[in-house]
Amino acid sequence: MIATAASAGAGLPLADQCCAPLLREPLSAAQAADLARTLKALADPTRLRLVSMVAAHDGGEACVCDLTEPLGLTQPTISHHLKVLVDAGIFSRDKRGVWAYYALRPQALQALAAIFAEAPGGRPASQRGSLRI
Amino acid sequence: MIATAASAGAGLPLADQCCAPLLREPLSAAQAADLARTLKALADPTRLRLVSMVAAHDGGEACVCDLTEPLGLTQPTISHHLKVLVDAGIFSRDKRGVWAYYALRPQALQALAAIFAEAPGGRPASQRGSLRI
Repeated sequence: MIATAASAGAGLPLADQCCAPLLREPLSAAQAADLARTLKALADPTRLRLVSMVAAHDGGEACVCDLTEPLGLTQPTISHHLKVLVDAGIFSRDKRGVWAYYALRPQALQALAAIFAEAPGGRPASQRGSLRI
Repeated sequence: MIATAASAGAGLPLADQCCAPLLREPLSAAQAADLARTLKALADPTRLRLVSMVAAHDGGEACVCDLTEPLGLTQPTISHHLKVLVDAGIFSRDKRGVWAYYALRPQALQALAAIFAEAPGGRPASQRGSLRI
């Protein structure tokens, strides 16, 4: 669950509890464990492809039936990866009829972006290299 | 190595080659494998603590001798984790005298921040929830 005004709480993935001061001060062991858990959910090639495929899909959502052919994997394998992403708060899941539809929850990735964006020293982005975004 | 004007090249971590269009279009298998490799280097509680401790350390750099006591781990264990972070392009390593000094290379994390920051639909941040950054 995303930490909205109504739903902030304990025991949630760090990306949703928001936000480890990764580059501001040393993380506690508990903060590091929470953030590592979220990153582990993403640190898999198939799951990264699922994130990008679902985000780019019509309407921003997709069911397993949309994903098996482009990935060349079985439905149980893809369902397993989708469950990991749902459990990490990266995807939402909406059951409609015989299929469940998965959509990206942008807040989780936005929280990660914010955690990584705080470069030490406060140098402006223009001085940080020639990254071609 | 970071992809600067002088050093862009193949075979580097994706965060340095820059930049997977994670939320813009489906990743290729190769792009997903590269990004997963970078995220795996970070998806470990000890390595995340090392990143935050080195970034917060005096002068933005630290040697193994600065890190063993606060982490309560042996020097070989910390050296292993530091090597993983150097190999992923997240830390630089500068040998001076008997010690090697490690510093964060902000470009790598900035690239990750950019990859995660592109929420689908182009909604402004103010509409993405109540993340408290």
